[in-house]
Parts: sequence; structure tokens; C-alpha cells
Amino acid sequence: MAGSSYGTMFRVTTWGESHGKGIGVVVDGCPAGLPLTEDDIQPFLDRRKPGQSRYTTSRREEDAVEILSGTFEGLTTGTPISMIVYNKNQRSKDYSEIAEYYRPGHADMTYDLKYGFRDYRGGGRSSGRETIGRTAAGAVAVKILDSLGIRLLTYTKSIGPVSVSPDNFDPAVINENPFYMPDAQAARQAAAYVEACMKNKDSAGGVIECVIKNMKSGIGEPAFEKLSANLGKAILSIGAVKGFEIGDGFASAQATGQSNNDQYMRAENGSILKMSNHSGGILGGISDGSDIVFRAAVKPTPSVSVQQNTVTRDGRGISVSIKGRHDPVIVPRAVVVVESMAAITLTDMLLMGVCSRMDNLIRFYKS
Amino acid sequence: MAGSSYGTMFRVTTWGESHGKGIGVVVDGCPAGLPLTEDDIQPFLDRRKPGQSRYTTSRREEDAVEILSGTFEGLTTGTPISMIVYNKNQRSKDYSEIAEYYRPGHADMTYDLKYGFRDYRGGGRSSGRETIGRTAAGAVAVKILDSLGIRLLTYTKSIGPVSVSPDNFDPAVINENPFYMPDAQAARQAAAYVEACMKNKDSAGGVIECVIKNMKSGIGEPAFEKLSANLGKAILSIGAVKGFEIGDGFASAQATGQSNNDQYMRAENGSILKMSNHSGGILGGISDGSDIVFRAAVKPTPSVSVQQNTVTRDGRGISVSIKGRHDPVIVPRAVVVVESMAAITLTDMLLMGVCSRMDNLIRFYKS
Amino acid sequence: MAGSSYGTMFRVTTWGESHGKGIGVVVDGCPAGLPLTEDDIQPFLDRRKPGQSRYTTSRREEDAVEILSGTFEGLTTGTPISMIVYNKNQRSKDYSEIAEYYRPGHADMTYDLKYGFRDYRGGGRSSGRETIGRTAAGAVAVKILDSLGIRLLTYTKSIGPVSVSPDNFDPAVINENPFYMPDAQAARQAAAYVEACMKNKDSAGGVIECVIKNMKSGIGEPAFEKLSANLGKAILSIGAVKGFEIGDGFASAQATGQSNNDQYMRAENGSILKMSNHSGGILGGISDGSDIVFRAAVKPTPSVSVQQNTVTRDGRGISVSIKGRHDPVIVPRAVVVVESMAAITLTDMLLMGVCSRMDNLIRFYKS
Amino acid sequence: MAGSSYGTMFRVTTWGESHGKGIGVVVDGCPAGLPLTEDDIQPFLDRRKPGQSRYTTSRREEDAVEILSGTFEGLTTGTPISMIVYNKNQRSKDYSEIAEYYRPGHADMTYDLKYGFRDYRGGGRSSGRETIGRTAAGAVAVKILDSLGIRLLTYTKSIGPVSVSPDNFDPAVINENPFYMPDAQAARQAAAYVEACMKNKDSAGGVIECVIKNMKSGIGEPAFEKLSANLGKAILSIGAVKGFEIGDGFASAQATGQSNNDQYMRAENGSILKMSNHSGGILGGISDGSDIVFRAAVKPTPSVSVQQNTVTRDGRGISVSIKGRHDPVIVPRAVVVVESMAAITLTDMLLMGVCSRMDNLIRFYKS
Repeated sequence: MAGSSYGTMFRVTTWGESHGKGIGVVVDGCPAGLPLTEDDIQPFLDRRKPGQSRYTTSRREEDAVEILSGTFEGLTTGTPISMIVYNKNQRSKDYSEIAEYYRPGHADMTYDLKYGFRDYRGGGRSSGRETIGRTAAGAVAVKILDSLGIRLLTYTKSIGPVSVSPDNFDPAVINENPFYMPDAQAARQAAAYVEACMKNKDSAGGVIECVIKNMKSGIGEPAFEKLSANLGKAILSIGAVKGFEIGDGFASAQATGQSNNDQYMRAENGSILKMSNHSGGILGGISDGSDIVFRAAVKPTPSVSVQQNTVTRDGRGISVSIKGRHDPVIVPRAVVVVESMAAITLTDMLLMGVCSRMDNLIRFYKS
Repeated sequence: MAGSSYGTMFRVTTWGESHGKGIGVVVDGCPAGLPLTEDDIQPFLDRRKPGQSRYTTSRREEDAVEILSGTFEGLTTGTPISMIVYNKNQRSKDYSEIAEYYRPGHADMTYDLKYGFRDYRGGGRSSGRETIGRTAAGAVAVKILDSLGIRLLTYTKSIGPVSVSPDNFDPAVINENPFYMPDAQAARQAAAYVEACMKNKDSAGGVIECVIKNMKSGIGEPAFEKLSANLGKAILSIGAVKGFEIGDGFASAQATGQSNNDQYMRAENGSILKMSNHSGGILGGISDGSDIVFRAAVKPTPSVSVQQNTVTRDGRGISVSIKGRHDPVIVPRAVVVVESMAAITLTDMLLMGVCSRMDNLIRFYKS
Repeated sequence: MAGSSYGTMFRVTTWGESHGKGIGVVVDGCPAGLPLTEDDIQPFLDRRKPGQSRYTTSRREEDAVEILSGTFEGLTTGTPISMIVYNKNQRSKDYSEIAEYYRPGHADMTYDLKYGFRDYRGGGRSSGRETIGRTAAGAVAVKILDSLGIRLLTYTKSIGPVSVSPDNFDPAVINENPFYMPDAQAARQAAAYVEACMKNKDSAGGVIECVIKNMKSGIGEPAFEKLSANLGKAILSIGAVKGFEIGDGFASAQATGQSNNDQYMRAENGSILKMSNHSGGILGGISDGSDIVFRAAVKPTPSVSVQQNTVTRDGRGISVSIKGRHDPVIVPRAVVVVESMAAITLTDMLLMGVCSRMDNLIRFYKS
Repeated sequence: MAGSSYGTMFRVTTWGESHGKGIGVVVDGCPAGLPLTEDDIQPFLDRRKPGQSRYTTSRREEDAVEILSGTFEGLTTGTPISMIVYNKNQRSKDYSEIAEYYRPGHADMTYDLKYGFRDYRGGGRSSGRETIGRTAAGAVAVKILDSLGIRLLTYTKSIGPVSVSPDNFDPAVINENPFYMPDAQAARQAAAYVEACMKNKDSAGGVIECVIKNMKSGIGEPAFEKLSANLGKAILSIGAVKGFEIGDGFASAQATGQSNNDQYMRAENGSILKMSNHSGGILGGISDGSDIVFRAAVKPTPSVSVQQNTVTRDGRGISVSIKGRHDPVIVPRAVVVVESMAAITLTDMLLMGVCSRMDNLIRFYKS
């Protein structure tokens, strides 16, 4: 079934495998008139590019993006924006061995059982490189949101047991440490933790948090197309994500109504103010005007070089040690992917929510 | 925008408000030939029916379902199954007061800001009664899955701070306590906890867990239509759900690759066995043949009778105490809703995954 | 597969069979604030109601519609509008005979081969009564369009060989003859033609034309979601429609570029004027500001009482004469169905086209 | 809005403009295990390639296709197939003039009014070159259908007033004349007719017919997803198509039930035989086992070099003569596009119709 498209009004279609010719995306439904060149996209890809610190895979890829369609004289035309990144540094021979067995924690077995065979080179379609397309599309979405004044702040909240401290929270340092943590001290502790994992031939996971500022209220739909539900799907569709929570999330299950409710007051300017934000900016699936806050749990990289038991395609039990170039922790590179999927979702729901009232529709039609 | 449908091949469309004439659902895409009568649906609605214990609202509703279309001589015909439950025990006067202000933790304000006004009676469309349609549709999905040997076991994992103990886990007691907990002792503790909340004019939340047994491997799609992503969306679209995790979920963010990977071995019968199930039955978005295990965090009921600050529609600050008939804890009644949304999602993805291989398509076409 | 929904932003889901409990529709995505009661819907249903002239089936149905959800104090709330019409005058015994054989020209055989069996009573889901749901939804769409100043004029263009003459064209007489023809003389000739068919135990077909006035330009999308393509799908999804053409349609295939092009001129008020309308109001799939004009070819009613050869379900050849209450010509009753499907499609595409430009999106968001 | 994708289970997303870097398509949902290389695709592109006869534009494009993803060792993997054709022979200067005015019969004005500006080079996204993506995708679909034994025969039925004669019908000559007509004599008359048009600085249109053989019955869905409705949308989404009819189409509007019905008989092998095929292979929206037969009306090329009135972007009336390299008749090159869109639609609906019965689903799941 066709599972590589996401979104209704703003629709993103990704394609490509880890060791194929390239990776790409088609962004359809971008409104016309947005200034857009490769210079808007490349910084996003650079945030997820491998080889940027000793905590990421040593595979070297420039991941240089090219826009193939959808813009004219520097502006989007309203037609599909096709973008491509060619794969340069494939070393397929690294993977010839893994053709024959299933790596624990990877999708090798499930692809084989679903499709009867698989492109085993670097994980094929299940590789993290698929997120290049999402990230390029996310850059477009972020630029649209930026035109509306909406800002996304995304960072690593924790690596393994090391968490950012609210007391040290400083957005300015996010881009100054290899973990994209808003807390320099936590970043140093995270480095020590990951070093220890690497020494043990092991890997680490973590939690990513995203805060969306300046959101208008009224975005999101009742019932199945709740903004929270779509953010959840978007984030849970990223390979290594195993959990999603919004606002107080799992903690709210232990709270009481009294402590979990956000009471309202009248602001000086006459607008309505929430006195807290346990809801994470969404009530009944619809944005409530507060910051939207959500978190994603990212599992540790399954590629570890310690010995593991597994089976071959023909069913023999063996013991393996995963070789090749792998990230000891994928969380930092996933930060921009989480931001991208959130931006794509918001853009899509903004476009869908424009005409929830007759007066909006009439104003549009008469303009 | 149209947000009241869910699913592609097996599509569920719900309608209705808390105090309107009724609540209903259209289930489209159900294969022909499934035996189906009201007797298959009613037990599911009874599991979420109000008034079953002192821990649920005292609103009395029979919630008797009627099938209006889509079956003939006791079998589904392949055409849309329309089901309706009439609202009987509306007491709209209870709600006349809340027309003028926004209840904290509810969707009153967001609906008003989105649509310009709202059906304030009992929360209108944002009421938990919307889940009647989901539950009736879920009963159909469960029956389809049952024909395939797939079983869903859903229960309350925790109420506030009270958790089910793995040592006491006993599915047989789930239906024998008002909390649908598989641990009689925990259920008694939960009762005490909720009683205390009620005494404090407060409310409780909790966590629901769902285990899906006998799942074939190979169901789910790469990229955006991962089985995990769609389960996440389905569950997060339920009103009070603030978090979703699959397998080890947020705990996996603190694990290492070594401890989080599920190693493989050869079973006696030659099949592949996972030696653990940290993945929760899904790898790369595709079912891996193990039990699917996920959890949903449910926030405490926002309707509490303690005094809270809020604002009126015209922007005055006031203090209110929510009256009316409310559940001190919504978790037990949400158990069947979680199960329903999971079953709907699985059925949809099963139908979408039938022809992932040419040989399946050829076999179908030549049959 | 789920085939009973139509539309993306404005989505219509129909359900029900000819001899089931009722027929209904859920209209999802209607903007909030539209005044709507049963009085807006019923006149549309009355236009397709049986038993209005001697040229329609004698089955007596009031087809009284009830709105079950989605309005509050006379206004749409933005949530799903569920509408129902109960079947009253089923005479299933009329159909017991046809359970065993396949009526030529009907969907009896295809349903049986697809689903393994069928609800044979009155054609079940394939009955023309399915269009009740479309028509009720169409009434909502027409009311939305009316708020924008858009008007649909739909009528019978021809019955069998009898065509409306351009010289006699008079919209005022459309509702004054049983054929909904804008030409009183043609209507009389049509009556004579249909009488002759009836005498021969035979039936008639015809062509329906729809003109949409006051359409803004810029509605419709490039590539696959052309306004013309979606109108085509909408109209061709009506049971008996076998052809669709827009503007000059099939005649344009015989024209030359010179005669078929619509040249432009500057209007007195400075706007652009097309000097003709061969395009039928759509260029490149996008409305061009002229009237949209399209036609649908409706086949003759397949239920004829003359002897026909057919086969039984178990494969024996027999000769049959269709009994029961049938329309000798379905065209007049299909006029309002064509109008409804056109209005639904236009509304959906209007809502989708609102934000084709960044400036529109910014204006919405900042408002 | 996102309008460049088509299909649900087998989804095609096209991108690219006439004078951009290239044209491409992503085919998502192709079952795994189909042998596929560029050699399967190129012959389809060659059928629509310009410059093949004096009746097509003299723009020279090799239109060489490259597969970028979705295959491994010569087989489809079940993941998205990305294909690209680079534009080589853009001569944008030809078009600098038309930046300032609206060509009659083209989408220049509607794009401008919708998006505020347009990529005017060669028509940008509205160019016929967009169909390259459809055709490459169509080649994949045709190969899938071929695996099932389904064959499509598509040809020009008429050019202007010149029609193929049933008496001369010979599929063998279709590829032997520049008009793809199955009648050598008609092809010669068509050539004379088009020559005359060219001499008059004019252009021609025509009708394309498609016959689909060996179709299983039971494909297509009731209500809105009728096979006929989806074929109609697919074909009407091709730029120059102004009409669509299935089976007897518009002629059936003049027929009577008796003459239009297809009676049934028992075949020697016990199967059911339709004694005629007025229905065009579809009854109630579902394939009936006969050949599917439909026709598309293609308008004459709007680019004619005779003088025409038009207006400039800033509203002045002018007279123009369209220069550049244009097809005097687009029909022959559209034949393969019609076939492609039909094949895509059929493949999509086949995949959607696999599990219309519980027994099919059970068989799949238990296999």
C-alpha cells in the first residue's frame, strides 16, 4: 500500500534508500509566493548530516540538496516542489554480510516477511536516511510557519539517564554542543555517558522535546483529526520513536483534575490567559493559544558491536557483532527530524483549518 | 475540515453530540459475509455505558444500539453499516449555566475560538459520548479480527499512583472490578484512591494497556503509515489521552541498545522467535509476530467541583465549581474505547497490507 | 474497500439500501455558522421523490428528512451533520422473485460476483434510493454556495431523441413540467415519446445539463485535482450516468483550435472577458470566471417489462419480464442529483483552494 | 492544495514543469517482486515523445527515463519508485514574449489568477510535459496488469471529422501510422485533414478509445468509488480532455432500455455471458467481466498561429499569433497517456478490491 505520503493539503512524499542513487521528496500544496531556494533547505539537512561529531556515524555525506521543480524566480509557484539529495558515500560491501541474517532491533526481518525479500544495503528503505526527505520538506514548512510568526524550538531533553535541568535551561547553547541540549552541563554529562556506552560496544537513547510558540488558537479538528493525534502520528512515524506525549503526558495520568487543569484569567489586554500549561497547548484536539509542548522517546541505536544472538534468513541460529559505521546515539540527529515532522503537521492543519467558519469562507470568496 | 472519519479501507465516520438526538457511526469497507447483529455490538457499548459503578457519572443511558444498514439476513453485505444510539437522558438545563463560561481543562474555549460559538450542552461534540460511535465500530473490527484468530486484551494498568503488579496479573478479574484492572488487590487500592479524590471534590487519571495476540508479521507500512504511528494517532485521538507508548516506550529512552534489542532464536518448529519483546511487536513500523503492546496515558477528568478560576465568554474573570453528573475517573470507561480504536486500526492496516507482494495479487486475481 | 465517502474538506458519506430501515448521509466539514434546518433540505428531496408524475415509479415515499446532529439553535456548528430518511413503503415481496436471477442492465450480477451474495430487495445498495443521501448533502452545499452568490441551474437537456431548443430556452418553465425541461414544447414532445416507450414496455434515457453561475476564477487544482476531473467523477458516480462532457465536450474533438479557443477582451470595467465559452468555464482544470457548463448522459431505465433473456444465480438460462414499480425514465429525478453532486464538488474544491497563495494564508492567520 | 497525487493503494505523484530541470514521478504502493527496469518504462515514453512525425512539435527531447529508487536487483521492493526525465531542449526565450499576455485556450490566465503569478515558460506546470510522469507510472501499472493477463488496447478513434471504420478495424496497424489509428485508410484521411489545418495555421482534435481485455468481474466499488467514476476522473484529469464516456455513453441517452440492456446467456463452459456490451464492461460501478470500453474527447491544440484577440497581464487588449514549436494535433501523443491513466486506475482499484469478502481476508491472513 502507498505509505510514503503524509498530509492532506500540504502533502509530503518521500522516496529513496540508504544505498540507492539518492533520497528525495515531493512537497505538494505549498502556497504560491514563498521565497525559497536551496539556501533555505540546506541548513536543516546539515543539522541531521552524519559525521559532525564523534557521536555520529563516520559515513561522510555532503547531503547537498537540489530543488528540481516548483519554484520560479526564487518563489514557490504553488506546484510540487521536488528535491533530491544524491547518495555519494555508499559502501555497500559493508553490508553484504548482513544480507543473510536479521540484525536485532532493526526492520530486516519484518521487511523480509512482508515483501519476501529486501534491499539489505544499509537498511534500504528502513534506513534513517529516509528522513532526509522529511527534513527538506520540514524546512519548507518551517519557512511557511515563520512567515506567520510561528517558531519551533526543538532540542534533546535527555540522553539515557542524563536530563536537562530546568534551572540551566538556555536555548542559546542548543547548537553549541553535539547533543543539541539546552544545558551545557547536561551536554557534558551526556558525552561522558555516551563515551561509556561506546566503550561497552553499546548505544544510547533519549528524549526530544519540541516547543511551538505563537500558535493561534483554533487549529486542529474535533474527533479523529485532533492536532495532538496528528502530531503523534507524525512523530511516531519516525523510525526509532517509541513514545509520544503532549503537555504533562504520562505524568498527567498520576495527577488529579485539580492539579492538571489549567485555570483561566483575564489578561491586562483583555485576552484570555491560561494560568498554567499542563495541556501542552491543545484542548479537545484544538490549539488553545498557549505554547504547544510535546516529547518523543527515542530508543537506543540497535546497531551495537557487542555479540548478539540472531537467526539467518534460512533459519539457523548464529551469534553476530554488527560492524559498519553507526551512530552510538541517534537522538541528536533526530532533533531536526522531529521539528520537521511537527512543522509539516502544523502547516497541513493550518491549511485545513482556514475555513472552519462561514464568514472566513465568504471573506475569501469575496476577496 | 472533515475530521470525523478514520481509516482508508475500513473507514469509520462518527457523528453526534452529547445532548443532540443521538450518536452514530457509519462503518464503511467491512468485508461481506461477516455474521453481525446488534448482539455483537451491545456488549461493547455496555462496557463504556455510564452508571455502572459509583465511580462513573450517574447519567442513565441504556445506549441501546440499532443497526440501520449494511447487513442482510444476519451477514454484512460489504456496504456501509450505519449504527445509531439515541440520547435519552439529556438534562440540558444542567448545562445552561456553562454556556457563559469556559470550564478549565475542557474544550469549551477552543471550540468557541475555532467556530465562533458552540453547542455547550454537555460539551456538545467534544463530549465523551462521541466515543459511542467508535466503540460500536470497534465491535465490528474486533469481530473481524476474531475471525482471523487475533485477540485484544485491554485493561487499566494504573489509576493515579496505583499500578497493577506483574505478580498479581490475572486477566480473569478484569471484568470483575469497576476499574477493569487485571489485579484484584490493585483494584481495591484504586477504589480507595478514587474515593479520596471524590472527597476532595477532585478526580483521577490513569494508564490503559492493550495487548494484541496472534498477530501475523508483515502488517504495517514503511515511512508514514507505520502500524505504530497509526495506533498512536488512533489512541491520541481519544479525548483525554495525553500520551502513547509502544513496547518499552519512554523507558527505552533510558535503556541501551544491548538491553533494548530483542535477540532472535530458532524455535523448535523452525520459526523465528524473539527472545524478548521490548519492541512491543513492531519493528520498522511493521508487525514482527510478537504480541503488540502499547499504553495510553489518560488525564484526570477535568470536571471537578472544587472552586476554579476561569473567564466568561465576554472576558470577565470568575470563580466556578463544576456541577452536574461527572465521572470522578474516566479511565475504566475508556478501556473499551482504546480497544476499539486499536481494532479499527489493525483491521484497516490488515486490509491495506493484503497485496504487498505480486504473488498475493496474482493469487487473488486468478482465484 | 470504503467507497461511500466523497470529498476531502467537505466530505459526504452515504449509507442505506432500498428496502433497509432507512437512507442517510453524514456531511462532515461544513463551516460553522450556516443557517440550516430541515426546511432547507426537504425541497431538494422533493425534487427527486417518487410518485410525482405518471413518468415515475408509483412507490409512495414521503422521504421526510430529519437532521440528527451538527446544528445548534438553527446554525451549523462545524461538526458532522447526520441526516436520515426512513424507508416507509418497502414492498419486499415484489422482489422475492428477483433474488434468483440477474436483471439485465442492473448491478445484480456484479454485486453477487463481488460480494458472494447480495441484498436483492429493490437493488439493495445499488438502488437509486442511495441518491437520497447525496441530495440531502447537496442541499447543504447549495446553501453554502448560495451564501457566496454562486447559483446552479440544472435541467433536462434531452429525453431520448427530443432536445431542448435554444430558441425556446426558458428557465422559468423548468419546474412546470414533469421532465424539468426549460422548454415547454420539448417537454410535451418528451411526454409523447415516453408514453410510446411505456406502451412498448420499454424505457427512455436522456441528457442533463448544469450551468454554474457567478463562479470566481482560480478554483480547481493543476494535475489530478482539476475541477473538471472532480466534477466528472462526481457525476459519473451517479448510477445511470454513462457519459460526461464539459463545455463543448465531444463536439470540441471535431472543432479546430481557431473555432474552439475562447479569445479574450477587456471589459468596460477593466476585467478580462472571454468572448465565448467553449471551455465550459474551466481552463487547465481551474475555473476561468465564466459559467461552468457540463452535461451528463443518463442511460434508459434497465427495468423494462418486455421479455428478456437472462440467467439464474445457479447458471440456468431463462426468459423474464421485470415486474414491480419502475420509472419509465429516470432522467427527471436525476436532475437534482446531478445538481447536488456538482454543488458538493464545488464546495469541496472551494474549501481546498482557499490558501493557494501565501498572502491568503497570512491574512487568515493574522485575522 | 496538494493536487499532484492520484490513487489510494497505488499512488502516483507527479512533479515538474516544461522548462524546469526535469519531470518526474513517484509511484508508491507497487507490490514487491515485479521485474522492472528502465527498459519497461522507456517504450511508453517513446510513444508520447515529441518530434516523431511532422504532426508533432519539433522540440527534440530524448525523454530518457532513470529509475532512482524502489527496485533492487531488477525487482520492485514494495517501496516508492522514483523516476526522472531531465529536460534537455528548453528554449525559454521562445516564451519570454508570452510572459506578458494570456494565450487563448491555455491555462495562462487561470494560473495567474489562482497563484498571483506563473512560470510562463512553455506553460510551466500546465504543459503537456507533466504527462511524462503519468506515462512512466502507467508503464509500471501496465506491467502489473500484464502479470494478471489484463491487456489494454488504446488508439485514436477519430481525428476531427475522420473516424475509424469498424469494417477496417485492424489493431496491427495502430503503431504503423503517426495517428495511432487502427485503420490505415482513416489514418491517411486524417493526415490530409491535419495538413489542411496546418495550412490554415489551425489545429485539430479527436477521440481516443481504450479497450481493456480479460478483466475479472467484481472490481470497483458501489457509490462514489465506481470503477467508471474513477476512470472518468483519471481521464478528465489529462489536460486537453473535455469529455468521457463508457460503453455506449452519450448514445445510450438516446437508446431505450430494451436496446441498451445487455441480456445474459449461459456459455458452454457454464459461465455467464453477456449477449452484447452496451454497458462497456461496468454495471453499478463494478466490472462485469466483459471488455471495458471507454472514450475520451480531446480538444484541438490551443496553440495556433492565426491571429487571435487576447489581453495582457495588465489588462490591455491585443492581437497575437502564437509562435514556437507546437503540435498541430495532440491526440496521437495523448493515446499512451490515456492508456497510462486507465492502467493506474485499474491497478489501484484491483488492490482496493482484494478483500471485499471475509473469505478472501481469512485466506490471506492464514497464508
